[in-house]
Amino acid sequence: MSAIITLTTDFGLTDAYVAAIKGVILSVNPEVKLIDICHCIEPQNITQAAFVLSTAYPFFPQKAIHLVVVDPGVGTERRAIILRTPLADFVAPDNGVLSYVIRQFSTRPPDDDAKQIELEPELEAVALTEPRFWRSPVSPTFHGRDIFAPVAARLSLGLPLTDFGEVITSVTMLPLPQPYQAADGSMVGHVIHIDSFGNLITDINSDNLPKGKRGLTIEVGNELISGLSRTYAEGKGLLALIGSDGYLEIAVKEGNASAVLSAKVGDEVRIR
Amino acid sequence: MSAIITLTTDFGLTDAYVAAIKGVILSVNPEVKLIDICHCIEPQNITQAAFVLSTAYPFFPQKAIHLVVVDPGVGTERRAIILRTPLADFVAPDNGVLSYVIRQFSTRPPDDDAKQIELEPELEAVALTEPRFWRSPVSPTFHGRDIFAPVAARLSLGLPLTDFGEVITSVTMLPLPQPYQAADGSMVGHVIHIDSFGNLITDINSDNLPKGKRGLTIEVGNELISGLSRTYAEGKGLLALIGSDGYLEIAVKEGNASAVLSAKVGDEVRIR
Amino acid sequence: MSAIITLTTDFGLTDAYVAAIKGVILSVNPEVKLIDICHCIEPQNITQAAFVLSTAYPFFPQKAIHLVVVDPGVGTERRAIILRTPLADFVAPDNGVLSYVIRQFSTRPPDDDAKQIELEPELEAVALTEPRFWRSPVSPTFHGRDIFAPVAARLSLGLPLTDFGEVITSVTMLPLPQPYQAADGSMVGHVIHIDSFGNLITDINSDNLPKGKRGLTIEVGNELISGLSRTYAEGKGLLALIGSDGYLEIAVKEGNASAVLSAKVGDEVRIR
Repeated sequence: MSAIITLTTDFGLTDAYVAAIKGVILSVNPEVKLIDICHCIEPQNITQAAFVLSTAYPFFPQKAIHLVVVDPGVGTERRAIILRTPLADFVAPDNGVLSYVIRQFSTRPPDDDAKQIELEPELEAVALTEPRFWRSPVSPTFHGRDIFAPVAARLSLGLPLTDFGEVITSVTMLPLPQPYQAADGSMVGHVIHIDSFGNLITDINSDNLPKGKRGLTIEVGNELISGLSRTYAEGKGLLALIGSDGYLEIAVKEGNASAVLSAKVGDEVRIR
Repeated sequence: MSAIITLTTDFGLTDAYVAAIKGVILSVNPEVKLIDICHCIEPQNITQAAFVLSTAYPFFPQKAIHLVVVDPGVGTERRAIILRTPLADFVAPDNGVLSYVIRQFSTRPPDDDAKQIELEPELEAVALTEPRFWRSPVSPTFHGRDIFAPVAARLSLGLPLTDFGEVITSVTMLPLPQPYQAADGSMVGHVIHIDSFGNLITDINSDNLPKGKRGLTIEVGNELISGLSRTYAEGKGLLALIGSDGYLEIAVKEGNASAVLSAKVGDEVRIR
Repeated sequence: MSAIITLTTDFGLTDAYVAAIKGVILSVNPEVKLIDICHCIEPQNITQAAFVLSTAYPFFPQKAIHLVVVDPGVGTERRAIILRTPLADFVAPDNGVLSYVIRQFSTRPPDDDAKQIELEPELEAVALTEPRFWRSPVSPTFHGRDIFAPVAARLSLGLPLTDFGEVITSVTMLPLPQPYQAADGSMVGHVIHIDSFGNLITDINSDNLPKGKRGLTIEVGNELISGLSRTYAEGKGLLALIGSDGYLEIAVKEGNASAVLSAKVGDEVRIR
């Protein structure tokens, strides 16, 4: 069975940066399967990459390797790491781009600032400090090609984690948005992603919702939505539903909720 | 020889929906070859997806499986199906997205309304009624990931069609545009697709054209084009030719006919 | 080990032209690995394709086959060729789209006009004159699908170069921009590519730069940049650095230099 390496970057589709990475990987492991997750992350948008990655990686076979190159600090002192979870390996800069992955294993309360977080026992990580696996010379502006790609490729050949560098026990965690209970008893969440259909995906998941969902009112922009729909094809105008990744979504039947509401990431969504 | 699954969706390139589908497929059949046909179908544009699919699938090896997820009715009573033709298998919602495929086998006259059409004898189909092949639980908003993907993957492993559900003998057919003869003897066709070069692809094919193509005049917008060119590099300004899929096309040498003519899908093209 | 075919086209992402090419290739060689380099080359922009290709192909395994279909002259008398270099094979129209590849082997001074250039001894080429490998009939508007794709696929099966057509000893070379020394002693270069981050990539490479890079001043638009940075994360505002392909680049930390400078390909960059 071929190893799998997925790719998530902010490199866009008009250049050959992604292809250069693939070429390097195939030069090391010609039999690996390369799968694109997304290359249209907004430039330098680490949080967006963290979210998009988290909606795809759980569906891949165990042992898949997920290479993430959204790396505004390339060439600086920021670390490059491999994170191993029971489900998958991640090769990425240590800039918070794995925050949603790590949160799925974390029991700690959320925090307001980006910071180092101690890894839970089921997670392992190494810093990429072992240059013998890198391309040489390393460009200070393209570690994706010269460090991450050859490391991911050799990892896909089965090399042990500790060959790639020093074991580390903490990694960078971004402050992820979290819904909270307001003084008036309503729940306040946030738009964390707007998909290409214009659906607003929020940080509220079904566990956050009160029982008896039928009586809910969802407030977004200046609009009110009564109750939850089950599918995108119900009703007219704005609707709310629990989307395929478990988050509360605001949508419009065969329309674009983001355009209708002039919504943006970070906007509040309130549930009464 | 690896099985092939192609993918045609309206999921765009900024999310991880396509990758989630690929992850599910690879979890079932790690050796399958995944080929993207197009993910930039306009949201919910079933007719566009039907056309784009029809211009690619005939070029794939026999037995390829074509997964199509343009599915505005996801989670409603619309059926999900597998259609088997002598050339290929299609896994898709039964919403008309296979209309161009089916028409290639149909001897029936066109009709004006979307409706169920009896399958010709060389076609087979089943409704996906057998949940044991699906992911569980099924999200009511993402059958692409939870039903179509695992079904296509198991189909690629060689399971018989009837394992997936009940045999059906009719499927949904969209009213496809058709050229017609006007009272004045001219032929009236329609723009059915505008490609990324701005070429206008019409529903007129070479069989519809009168013999002696040199004497033709093509009327589009307020412009007249005399005769057919053979290549995009001939003449100056607007030209007409028979494109690579057999349809009459309007183009501009190293330019964009759609922009020049402010054309849109549905516009009439008249041949005298 | 599977053969690799990469694809570089101006076909965009909204049509199925790329998929048709892939289907044809897989019909001939079902085990080949298909890797996209770029399909968002501007329509008919041969120079852009030539550059983008040159930044990816060196990173692929030796013997990879690079299929390039940016072909405004399709169906005319322009030749279709295979070019073999010590590193890779290229299947492309003979319209200059391989100019950057060829220049890496050429010792000749640059010239101002597109012209035929004699191939250096380490390069081999054939014109695709042998129709038995093509699809039949050949569409005069889609040689990518009907000639280049089946030829690349059969080449990936190991057929000898000369099976595909007549040996040729010269190919088309575009006039590539070159930096030059101005009368006042400054070096004048040009923006040759703007990447999706808005970085301006110039034709000046580190060999062209005077020793003692710290004392440099770079003039672009009406702005002056002092000295070279090492990474994109340094300083504020505009910066200059040697990018990952060895060219001088103008960038903005977490910003878009192209937008800041209203820059376009061809703009002058001056080094003092």
